Parts: sequence; structure tokens; C-alpha cells
Amino acid sequence: MADKPSVLRETDDEARKLARVSLRSARSASLAVVEPASEGFPFVSRVLTGIDTDGTPIILISALSTHTQALSADRRCSLLTGEIGKGDPLAHARLTVQCEAERVDRDSAAHTRIRDRFIRRHPKAQLYVDFPDFAFFRLTPLRASLNGGFGRAYVLSGEDLMIRSPAIADLAAKEASAIEHMNTDHSDAASKYANTYCNAKGTGWRICGLDAGGIDLASGDQLKRLEYETPLQFEWELRATLVKLYG
Amino acid sequence: MADKPSVLRETDDEARKLARVSLRSARSASLAVVEPASEGFPFVSRVLTGIDTDGTPIILISALSTHTQALSADRRCSLLTGEIGKGDPLAHARLTVQCEAERVDRDSAAHTRIRDRFIRRHPKAQLYVDFPDFAFFRLTPLRASLNGGFGRAYVLSGEDLMIRSPAIADLAAKEASAIEHMNTDHSDAASKYANTYCNAKGTGWRICGLDAGGIDLASGDQLKRLEYETPLQFEWELRATLVKLYG
Repeated sequence: MADKPSVLRETDDEARKLARVSLRSARSASLAVVEPASEGFPFVSRVLTGIDTDGTPIILISALSTHTQALSADRRCSLLTGEIGKGDPLAHARLTVQCEAERVDRDSAAHTRIRDRFIRRHPKAQLYVDFPDFAFFRLTPLRASLNGGFGRAYVLSGEDLMIRSPAIADLAAKEASAIEHMNTDHSDAASKYANTYCNAKGTGWRICGLDAGGIDLASGDQLKRLEYETPLQFEWELRATLVKLYG
Repeated sequence: MADKPSVLRETDDEARKLARVSLRSARSASLAVVEPASEGFPFVSRVLTGIDTDGTPIILISALSTHTQALSADRRCSLLTGEIGKGDPLAHARLTVQCEAERVDRDSAAHTRIRDRFIRRHPKAQLYVDFPDFAFFRLTPLRASLNGGFGRAYVLSGEDLMIRSPAIADLAAKEASAIEHMNTDHSDAASKYANTYCNAKGTGWRICGLDAGGIDLASGDQLKRLEYETPLQFEWELRATLVKLYG
């Protein structure tokens, strides 16, 4: 038998964008951890997901769950995103991200930022986010593999999934007020963005996230990611970008 | 701090049935394996699933994939099923099954049976099921955890997910012809079963599986499981059961 054929394609910007959109538009994901006290048995369950302002995936999990107990003993984990659409479930893009998990200290500034973003994405999480047994974890991506459908496999670096910009902190400080302004004073903008750039229908859209890399759009159970071509480098670019995309 | 509160409920027949239906009505699942050559890093990806006549979950995967390479080195794996419905993704039941994987020998009688059942469930898999790099694996359940929604967690044994009956082989021998007969001569029966017992709408349903434990029903991208109260103990019970359910 000859050498094993490779199904890997060369990773290009289109694949990177597909991977970022898959990760950043996920409401939930499958999370695999190492089962505690089992000498390395994998364990997979479902988690709610968010994204920090630098692109790091976020999960909110209970200390009573197997995954929290597992991550406290071994922080290695694997996250699977990608919606199952119509037709063959394997014809749709999905992304596996190999990560290291780190608990977010409840007293940190990061916690406030992550909590606010998470609740804007998952309003119902407000019911339990402050329960003492719940905690956020940041999942730092180490490497990833994208399967864009049959015969379209790509390897990505953790860095491919990050948002890098000197404007991240300034944009984060302004995020809540900018979203409030857009959803209140320009309430048609979110639907226009979703319809024009995200192949999404309907007029009930709202902005639920604004970061250097793009815009998170929500409508009922739907979540879409409008990913900028390149991240904003200055906080003052945000307004012009939102105006330009509105057209 | 007091003892850690338990969120586990006592496993009853309702929980067992919910778990079986979740597993047996899945078209695809998240499969976590131990990543090869990484000293135990978990790796999760999406797979197509089927069910053998004794209830054992089946997957069809390519030797080019990470999961096949992983299972060849370490057969421990974790399978997550449960559809994400409307509203909060964590409000819907999902099942984690801890399994040991075993490749199905292509020359075995089991392969013919498993292949036929799998293709009835996933007609499009016919395109690649016989490619030399594809193989079926049986995933023997060792233990499982069911999350039926917030605060409704149950532990199950592997045995809870199996179908036990002396009639399994006889029913398997008759399965293809019984399905053909039902879908051809009683073509409204599948839709009636789906509408009456599976909370499913529409008239386009067909039977895609008949085993000692119940009936698999398919319509487009939908798959439903009509689970009998108790498994059939004799092959001759099948006809009477189908007639009785028709009403």
C-alpha cells in the first residue's frame, strides 16, 4: 500500500474566517475533558459558550458537573462547534479546538467583562450566572482542526482563532454603551447587518457583542457573527465601520 | 461549607427510556477520543451514528480521521447525543455514554447486518460506506450520564442502554423484508406511528429500523424512535405489535 493519502488542504484566509465564524457564532458546544478518577477516559458533554474580547472561548459551568471537576484536575479540553444544518450532518462545517482551561477569578476585572458579554449573548443565563457553584473558564486555543465538509480538512493554530489589536481594551470599555446606542437609536441596523452579511432572515435582530474582530448578532435562538476583514486597530474606527456596513 | 449537594436523581424507568430514545434517535453525535501522540489530550469531533440490533451504538468513520487513529491506539471514547431544540440549549436532554470501541470486521456477518441498518438510516452513506478507508465501529456502553435539563441528572449503567431479548437474531433476519412490506403495503403506518407516539408531524415518514426494542422512523432529516414498553421476546410478536400500534 502506498503512503497514506492526505485529505488536508493548505490553510488559507477563507478557512481561517470559516473557523472563526463557527467558533464565534456558537451558542453551545460539545466539550470533551479527561474524566476525573478514570486514568484518562475522555468525557464529552454540552456547554454554553461565549467569546472574550480577544477571541478566547468562554464557558460557564457548574462545580457540580463532571466537566468542572475534570478541568480542576486536568485543564486540557477539546471544544466542538458547528451547527448541524439540513441534509447529511457531515456536509456541514465543524471545528475542533484543543484548549487549556483556566478558571476566571470572580473578583477580577476580566470576570465583569466576561459576565456582561456572556449575559448579552445568553440573557437567560442571568438566572444562574451568580450562583456560587457556577464559574467561567477561559479556554485558550492551542491548535484546531476545521472540517469544512467532505474532503475539506484544515489544520489551524491557536493564534488563527485569536483577535489581535491594540484597541481591544478601549473597545471593551465602550462596548456596552455602543450596543445600547445602536439597538436603541438605530434599531434597524442589526437586522440590516444580519440580512446583508450573514445570510440571515427576519427583522428581529439585535447586536449582542462588539469587539475588534466583528459584531455578534442575535435573534431569538439564532446567533450570527459578522467578522470584519481585518480587526479594528483604533477605538475610533468603530463608529465609521458601523456606518459603512449600514451602507 | 457543607457537603457538596447532589444533583443526581434516582434513575427510574422514565430516565432509562429518555436515555434510550436520545441515543437511538440520533443521526449524529459528538465523539470524544484520546488524541493520538499527545499523552492523553481529549479530542472531540462529529460522527454519523447508527444502532445495532442489540442497542450497541455504531459509528462509521474514515481511517484518515483523527478519531480512527485515536481508537486504534486507545479504544476508550465518549459519545454525546441529544438535539438542541428551541430556547436555552441546556434545557434539552442530552446523554453522555462512556464506551469501548471495537472495529467491525468487514468479512463478518455482523458487518452485513450493521451496514444494511446503517444505510437504511443514512441513505447517503451508500456513497462512501464501501470505500476501503471507511470502517464501522461498535461502541459498547460501559456507563452513561443523562442530563434531562436543569437539575435533572441521572447515572445509568451500560446495560440500561442495551436491548436484551432471545428474539434479536430472528428479528434481524426478518428486518429488511418486514420494513419493505410495511413501507410498501402499509405506507401510512410509519407516519401514523410518528404522529401518534413520537410527537412528530407530517406524512412523509418511513420505517428505517425494526428491532426487538422498537421502531426507527425517518422523514427527510428527522429521525424518531418509537420505543416499546418492553422488548419483543419472540419474532412472531412483531406483526401483532405493528398492528396494535396502528390502532
